[in-house]
Amino acid sequence: MARSLFWEDGALVVLDQTQLPHRVEWLRLRRWPEVVEAVRALRVRGAPALGAAGAYGVALAARELAANPQEFHERLRQAAEAIRSARPTAVNLAWGTDRALRAAEGAPEAEQAAESALAEAHRIVQEDERACRALAEAGARELGDGERVLTLCNTGALATLGIGTALGILRAAWEAGKRVHVYACETRPLLQGARLTTWELRELGIPFHLVVDAAAGWLMARGRVDRVVVGADRVAANGDVANKIGTYTLAVLCRHHRVPFWVAAPLSTVDLATPDGQAIRVEERAPEEVTWFAGCPVAPEGTPALNYAFDVTPAELVDALVTDAGVLRPPFGPALRAAVGGARV
Amino acid sequence: MARSLFWEDGALVVLDQTQLPHRVEWLRLRRWPEVVEAVRALRVRGAPALGAAGAYGVALAARELAANPQEFHERLRQAAEAIRSARPTAVNLAWGTDRALRAAEGAPEAEQAAESALAEAHRIVQEDERACRALAEAGARELGDGERVLTLCNTGALATLGIGTALGILRAAWEAGKRVHVYACETRPLLQGARLTTWELRELGIPFHLVVDAAAGWLMARGRVDRVVVGADRVAANGDVANKIGTYTLAVLCRHHRVPFWVAAPLSTVDLATPDGQAIRVEERAPEEVTWFAGCPVAPEGTPALNYAFDVTPAELVDALVTDAGVLRPPFGPALRAAVGGARV
Repeated sequence: MARSLFWEDGALVVLDQTQLPHRVEWLRLRRWPEVVEAVRALRVRGAPALGAAGAYGVALAARELAANPQEFHERLRQAAEAIRSARPTAVNLAWGTDRALRAAEGAPEAEQAAESALAEAHRIVQEDERACRALAEAGARELGDGERVLTLCNTGALATLGIGTALGILRAAWEAGKRVHVYACETRPLLQGARLTTWELRELGIPFHLVVDAAAGWLMARGRVDRVVVGADRVAANGDVANKIGTYTLAVLCRHHRVPFWVAAPLSTVDLATPDGQAIRVEERAPEEVTWFAGCPVAPEGTPALNYAFDVTPAELVDALVTDAGVLRPPFGPALRAAVGGARV
Repeated sequence: MARSLFWEDGALVVLDQTQLPHRVEWLRLRRWPEVVEAVRALRVRGAPALGAAGAYGVALAARELAANPQEFHERLRQAAEAIRSARPTAVNLAWGTDRALRAAEGAPEAEQAAESALAEAHRIVQEDERACRALAEAGARELGDGERVLTLCNTGALATLGIGTALGILRAAWEAGKRVHVYACETRPLLQGARLTTWELRELGIPFHLVVDAAAGWLMARGRVDRVVVGADRVAANGDVANKIGTYTLAVLCRHHRVPFWVAAPLSTVDLATPDGQAIRVEERAPEEVTWFAGCPVAPEGTPALNYAFDVTPAELVDALVTDAGVLRPPFGPALRAAVGGARV
């Protein structure tokens, strides 16, 4: 499966995910404000992919601003701030942006700073590829043969720089010869499940059904779901998880039905500086994402809609955090501190 | 608010609900197979409205078949069977169809049979109007001032022959001077919440927000929902409830958050011949309802989708059944037997 973004000839090339599955359209982003736009509009999405996009955005900004060495660092910081805040919930965006900014600030001159930022972005890509592989294999080892797994949103190659997080686990299990059946929730309002996850599953040959989000409870009541595995946009220090709206509903359903609820996330998505879910800012997006569809209104004109893009699932509803440092179990606080500490050594 | 269907000049006139909110289009159904098509395609929908549609369908069939008195009763039974089975889950369709058929069969001649069926259909409309009013007022009396109520699908004037069931309660409370705020779940795949409930709420002036179905859990977690009130397509003798897919998920969420979960249904939706939810046939509809939207595919071609139109909520998750015989509390078995028995006297 092709990478969702890569660097080529001085440009960040991204697959425009708003056009999938109808059109495979690559965008060449040559200026950093184009990265901000692509992130805001969800052309690039998925927490790990946003980490790399942020870093490449800083690299683009550094190349652009190097022409004016005097104000270079000040203006680079401003650009980084704009990139970092294009979306508030996924921690990887801030984390990747800041890594590239620090790399640039460590260089004595503007030209070198741009090179350093770019090198750091490339490193983030390589690290994410390895992290996805490690977490996918850790999760796949614990998945039973023949499991029917329900998932939300898109957490595969399109959302990361590797084989994915939640979807990566299913892919690794499938490639290791385990039988898997996936229930892909369509994931309103932007239908990442219907548009992107189905696209990846078909390419991988993994059997699946698409379902509306509200069907999850009924599938569980009928005993058709063995496990729910989702990704994460931010994991707080205590194990609380911000992820796509609907994740929390799935976690409550899992607890009611005694179905294991797994969150798959690389350690880059863990934010020890966020003590718990209360401290996570949940992005509210435009009501039109709910009231319009594919250029058509689906509700009467002027309909007020609340459009939280994410929700927060408390750690006590999470049975396992599947990371590149292995499958973590509660209590997550100490487990996360140890895993992140170990990764930094 | 205009009635969603009525009889005029020998035709059943129905508001085509698949065209709302974009176009207000009335269809004149003159032959009974057109009623079957309108029911299957959800041009007419909502359990109580389906009861009247079924009865008018029999009246149309009787008028049409009266030209051939010899085979009249046999062919009328066949037509009634086709109407009754146009959709399997809502009990009112079978109930209304059978009432009109019995009325026709009680008449000595075909011409009179047609008149009797039509009179019975009119009676069903009048009864439903009264039942809606009675249940709405019973529910509204118990609703607190300022409550924030989450609902699913459309259960208002469009779904009934009166002011509605779940939405009727909100309307009656609002008209009695209580402040109400509604969260209308959009109700995928066919968006009855986004298209129809918003349309009714705007006309009534009741404040509301449209939300995606998957947001219900997060709204409850944030303490923004005081009550969930939904309709029903069939209430079994023990109080198990078949209703729009997603109802069961809401019931589980309510239990987890200690939010009262109410089901509003006229006694015509109670089916004492169905002992419990296990005995209810849940309609599975075409996958294209999930994979296509407004004439556009939203998933890759050939994507397999599971499309249960309904789910079944066990009685133990229901806090109250709001009926035209008052607000019933558990245990529902004896309460329903008494209420239905009382209504038949």
